[in-house]
Amino acid sequence: MPTRLTKAKHAALATHLPAWTLLAEEAGAHPRPEAIRRRFHFADFSAAWGFMSRVALLAEQHGHHPDWSNVWNRVEITLTTHDAGGLTERDVALAEAIDALGGAEV
Amino acid sequence: MPTRLTKAKHAALATHLPAWTLLAEEAGAHPRPEAIRRRFHFADFSAAWGFMSRVALLAEQHGHHPDWSNVWNRVEITLTTHDAGGLTERDVALAEAIDALGGAEV
Amino acid sequence: MPTRLTKAKHAALATHLPAWTLLAEEAGAHPRPEAIRRRFHFADFSAAWGFMSRVALLAEQHGHHPDWSNVWNRVEITLTTHDAGGLTERDVALAEAIDALGGAEV
Amino acid sequence: MPTRLTKAKHAALATHLPAWTLLAEEAGAHPRPEAIRRRFHFADFSAAWGFMSRVALLAEQHGHHPDWSNVWNRVEITLTTHDAGGLTERDVALAEAIDALGGAEV
Repeated sequence: MPTRLTKAKHAALATHLPAWTLLAEEAGAHPRPEAIRRRFHFADFSAAWGFMSRVALLAEQHGHHPDWSNVWNRVEITLTTHDAGGLTERDVALAEAIDALGGAEV
Repeated sequence: MPTRLTKAKHAALATHLPAWTLLAEEAGAHPRPEAIRRRFHFADFSAAWGFMSRVALLAEQHGHHPDWSNVWNRVEITLTTHDAGGLTERDVALAEAIDALGGAEV
Repeated sequence: MPTRLTKAKHAALATHLPAWTLLAEEAGAHPRPEAIRRRFHFADFSAAWGFMSRVALLAEQHGHHPDWSNVWNRVEITLTTHDAGGLTERDVALAEAIDALGGAEV
Repeated sequence: MPTRLTKAKHAALATHLPAWTLLAEEAGAHPRPEAIRRRFHFADFSAAWGFMSRVALLAEQHGHHPDWSNVWNRVEITLTTHDAGGLTERDVALAEAIDALGGAEV
């Protein structure tokens, strides 16, 4: 089972993954552990879909899948590790790989 | 500009598209006109992604795009016509085409 | 049924679609009408696949589908109109749309 | 570097992967080591593309990529390991995973 980020790595998230926003744990009807989120904007649906198709490859390659949504040219990706109840190295690794796709935003 | 569904067609939605749920208009921070929504479950991410890849083709073919999200084997599709402030024939046509993909749910 | 390109438009192909190569009709075991072909190179499979995912949207949108192949970072697209026995406006329109995806080659 | 299939495993290919055809090495302008090939037929381009989108995930997950082509509802997949100059366990594993997608042919 993946282990949670150390305090040091958690503290470094803002510096290490500056494009991602830290989201506090959510309780209620749709509970979700602490997570990180990034929003992308593209020229149109085609560009957004080309990007999503590459993220899908990364997700399956990492064995770690995003909670993500799309509306035309916008894509929102939320990462957390449900099994660990919070953020793990898996989330950081997938976020880094998504960032490395680069140049995708308009 | 697309026109809203007639009262007769709106009343027939539950019969015509029984797998879709009618969602009332939402006000607030993320306003959204009246919409229809369907949730899909698949065996795994691969099956969900194969389905999404076919829905993407339909969306671009129809020139009408869903508000949709995915978490591993689940896909949720919400359809509305923002320009018309509610449901139109475009939503019905895309929902019919998505339903016609068939057999996708576990 | 789509009609063949006029002589003037056929003569303008080299100027209008300079990235595409004109292929003569092929007889034999796998006959194929006159066609146009373009080869693309990308950084890796992911980039090639992102591009292919966008071309798939175009193909379905145009109702006109390529004969195409992929090996890791390379994509080869061949366009012709089998029903018309040669090149038509459909091939030119799809080639233009593929060219408009732009910036894809390494 | 991946090693070639043992004689025993090579001899078992016809039984183990009955849907795949063994292709002898090809010399000439486009040389290719010994390979295995399977052809798929689908109802239409959409179904073929949904299948290809799943094969793309498998390829990236396995770190092993097919030489493949598509024309509307047909997909042809050829597997070999160029680095090893012939068939390896990588080809067998990817072929097994593609076969496991199942039910895709019309």
